[in-house]
Amino acid sequence: MTINWNSFTYAISIAGTVAFAVTAVLAIHSRSDIDIVGAIILGLITATGGGTLRDVILGVPAFWSQDLIYIWVATGSSIAALYGRSFFSHRYLFGLMLYLDGLGVALFGIQGTEKAWALGFGLPVAPIIMGVTTAIGGGIMRDILAGRTTLLMRHEIYATPVILSSTAFIILLNYFPDYRVFGSFICILGAFALRAGAIHWNLSMPAFAIRARNENE
Amino acid sequence: MTINWNSFTYAISIAGTVAFAVTAVLAIHSRSDIDIVGAIILGLITATGGGTLRDVILGVPAFWSQDLIYIWVATGSSIAALYGRSFFSHRYLFGLMLYLDGLGVALFGIQGTEKAWALGFGLPVAPIIMGVTTAIGGGIMRDILAGRTTLLMRHEIYATPVILSSTAFIILLNYFPDYRVFGSFICILGAFALRAGAIHWNLSMPAFAIRARNENE
Amino acid sequence: MTINWNSFTYAISIAGTVAFAVTAVLAIHSRSDIDIVGAIILGLITATGGGTLRDVILGVPAFWSQDLIYIWVATGSSIAALYGRSFFSHRYLFGLMLYLDGLGVALFGIQGTEKAWALGFGLPVAPIIMGVTTAIGGGIMRDILAGRTTLLMRHEIYATPVILSSTAFIILLNYFPDYRVFGSFICILGAFALRAGAIHWNLSMPAFAIRARNENE
Repeated sequence: MTINWNSFTYAISIAGTVAFAVTAVLAIHSRSDIDIVGAIILGLITATGGGTLRDVILGVPAFWSQDLIYIWVATGSSIAALYGRSFFSHRYLFGLMLYLDGLGVALFGIQGTEKAWALGFGLPVAPIIMGVTTAIGGGIMRDILAGRTTLLMRHEIYATPVILSSTAFIILLNYFPDYRVFGSFICILGAFALRAGAIHWNLSMPAFAIRARNENE
Repeated sequence: MTINWNSFTYAISIAGTVAFAVTAVLAIHSRSDIDIVGAIILGLITATGGGTLRDVILGVPAFWSQDLIYIWVATGSSIAALYGRSFFSHRYLFGLMLYLDGLGVALFGIQGTEKAWALGFGLPVAPIIMGVTTAIGGGIMRDILAGRTTLLMRHEIYATPVILSSTAFIILLNYFPDYRVFGSFICILGAFALRAGAIHWNLSMPAFAIRARNENE
Repeated sequence: MTINWNSFTYAISIAGTVAFAVTAVLAIHSRSDIDIVGAIILGLITATGGGTLRDVILGVPAFWSQDLIYIWVATGSSIAALYGRSFFSHRYLFGLMLYLDGLGVALFGIQGTEKAWALGFGLPVAPIIMGVTTAIGGGIMRDILAGRTTLLMRHEIYATPVILSSTAFIILLNYFPDYRVFGSFICILGAFALRAGAIHWNLSMPAFAIRARNENE
């Protein structure tokens, strides 16, 4: 069971890495010219930046220095996205990438939370912050480097599913540690369901959660 | 004396954390719509980003992982600032927040310098850099994430008091280490006085310190 | 021989630090007003930011905390560039600075690769990433802080020579470790030659490496 679960999350990690790199290159490319070196660097930073920031804050070696497949996959995906743009921009494939990106966000959030929890980092709430950092850090770096409005300012339902699922997961780790594997599956699934719903119905943050700028101020 | 001093600086740390988060959310909000999740993340990064960057460079655990009150206070203040905007935007309260922000900057600068000094990090001048990093790092991250002109480009008297007070403080630590507690009080007070004067009289950097862009170049 | 080589690379490190700080201040200054404190901080970050990021990811002390000359040189160069603008903007001197910047990039790339390799960090390919991080990290931070389009989006031949020379260098370290010193000299020279050619002939990335934005998408 454990081996199967590990294989399963490993496969999602790789799929999420592909999706992070591909969607980054396509998103930047839809608004700016981009060269192959810029595409590779932006794809790599998007795919690995969040986990790297988490590892730096936790004081542990960067995850990709211990398993180089993330480097190869992100590099290959970035090149493929740049030269296979018309292929990846195809409606169904681009949709698939968006959902895989959502699956990656859901998984990386729980992985980050679990890694911080296992290290006893600022229990009980700091692991939530590390989960969010892992899941959205790379996307924020991509937005900054590409000169886009960062996702923090866009009212997408992107960080919210990670906050909710990481919070649920630390409650579970604290009170029901025996259900760690099953619980992490449920939390990833829940975060992905929320994100997938937001993609499918094109949902933004609800009105009560947004405060419009006051022109009179 | 030592205990009182520690309680005193701890209280200022908390007040500075409140002020960093509140002024961040109000400043962003005065120019853009913002949602609750974005506000919390931006408030947290503004309030804790400088100290986190310092700790990462020093190679020590992030300060908020060892005292979660900073997380709670920054989160609560961000939410309060977003929903209590009209309250916090009241002239007197917003003024209070600006001065508390200045007090936080003054304190965090000296705290960062002292922490680096105690670790023997690049003596004697690197602690000044760590003081400045602690004091203004979060504000710079806020500006980048919100798409604003960073405070490095705005000619405010913001980093200058920290550089001066941190420099005075390392001279004191080097030549008069017995006066550490009293000296840090004086340095914090001096930095705050300079910043408060800049707020009160709306001062910018003096003309001799600014080089205007040359249109002919 | 080893001592001479170390003295030689040390001298280039210092020259590269001067060039990074001077070109940063002049570049920002040509588009915006800037004050002395902003200039120093931007010059310092540009000159030391890439190496600092490398050291943080590698989990070793920041290089400038162990040899403060980098701080002094970057600070002095930033001040000199701001107040001696007309001097440094002189056609020949500015050209010299551009080439010294290119020499710095070539050297810092190989130094970063070698440092990561010596630490056994993610062999064999992660050292290339650390080389690129060292060489261009500071320049990217400068662009972000100054609100400029980052060099990742500008199609300059800037990161490419570093990627090529770092790749050549890890092949050499892997298969011909006895030729480390001579090989690093050749790799630095090769990267500099490519960068110098790009400066001299004002070359951008070749057309096959750039994918234009598709207006119809």
